[in-house]
Amino acid sequence: MKIAILGTGQVGQTIATKLAALGHEVKMGSRTANNEKANAFVAANGGKTSQGTFADAAAFGEVVFNCTSGGASLDALKMAGAENLKDKTLIDLSNPLDFSKGMPPSLYPQYSNTTSLGEEIQKAFPDAKVVKAFNTMNCKLMVEPTLVPGEHDLFVGGNDAGAKEKVKEIAGWFGWKNPIDLGDITSARGTEMILPLWVRMMGVNQSPNFNFKIVR
Amino acid sequence: MKIAILGTGQVGQTIATKLAALGHEVKMGSRTANNEKANAFVAANGGKTSQGTFADAAAFGEVVFNCTSGGASLDALKMAGAENLKDKTLIDLSNPLDFSKGMPPSLYPQYSNTTSLGEEIQKAFPDAKVVKAFNTMNCKLMVEPTLVPGEHDLFVGGNDAGAKEKVKEIAGWFGWKNPIDLGDITSARGTEMILPLWVRMMGVNQSPNFNFKIVR
Repeated sequence: MKIAILGTGQVGQTIATKLAALGHEVKMGSRTANNEKANAFVAANGGKTSQGTFADAAAFGEVVFNCTSGGASLDALKMAGAENLKDKTLIDLSNPLDFSKGMPPSLYPQYSNTTSLGEEIQKAFPDAKVVKAFNTMNCKLMVEPTLVPGEHDLFVGGNDAGAKEKVKEIAGWFGWKNPIDLGDITSARGTEMILPLWVRMMGVNQSPNFNFKIVR
Repeated sequence: MKIAILGTGQVGQTIATKLAALGHEVKMGSRTANNEKANAFVAANGGKTSQGTFADAAAFGEVVFNCTSGGASLDALKMAGAENLKDKTLIDLSNPLDFSKGMPPSLYPQYSNTTSLGEEIQKAFPDAKVVKAFNTMNCKLMVEPTLVPGEHDLFVGGNDAGAKEKVKEIAGWFGWKNPIDLGDITSARGTEMILPLWVRMMGVNQSPNFNFKIVR
């Protein structure tokens, strides 16, 4: 599958590297073409990987992963271009974490509580099929759930049933069984708002290798 | 132990009834003495149970449970009286849920994100030993963890180590093993902010019989 990764940070690198290892055609996008980290990704993964601007990547991908940092996501997606996101599954991994006041981060009020970053992205790009997923865990765990032993959960939420099925299929490539479908994109409020507990738990646990499970 | 329950709603009734069944002296407090629901609790549980105002209950209890609704908690605790809460373990079960705009509830901005209701209670009553606990689950589960099979978690957070030990002891009476100590009262941000996911999951699950587990 042709897949776009928007963002060259740790999350983007991890998702892109895994998808490349699985044999997919992956284009990593950044603000400018020939971003140093995007070039390093291509150099390391070769063959079917490539890099370019956010718009280049979004135009290329059948599926688009938003791996940009939450505060910059809407700008990055504007650079990607609504026409390049139209009718595509846009997997939103971002969280509206505001680190500007130091640690621990709070959530940007304009992207939380009575709305969410996932919802704001869906509103800004009504023709994209936004699916919130993977945002409740460390990126290494996203692509390798067995890093944490036993059963634990991946949440997905979005308005388009077909796009959610596609995300569940991709999650299956990574090893996820039975993701919890929380319904429409407004469910992103819930999954984004558990980040403060996630950050706290990382401190308690002294490791990001943990995950939430809904026991029922 | 002499225990005060502030609040006559479902949470207060459930905690008070369990503690009475365990043989403790329980006084249920409300805005006014002889609240109908508080009288019903005493009528049903007899003997060592009693009722009165918030202040009556707080003065009576060695340990005080705040089971009032989040938006009313600070007012209720003011009626309970700082002098009656001084040096006592104040177990805060409340969540800053704002139902005024309909379902799903949002969180009151003044009690969330860069602060929490637990913190605001601790600030308003600096001589009380506030411990946030039990606020991440349905009240029936609080006092009977085996309602959900298998292992799942209770979170505690507060500034006073001795008070947290007391809460862990009480949690043990209810059947909780190994609560997760999240540190100081600022951790209440995390546990209060998972309520939107809890509410969403209740809809997905069509039952409140579930709980969070940290898998690591």
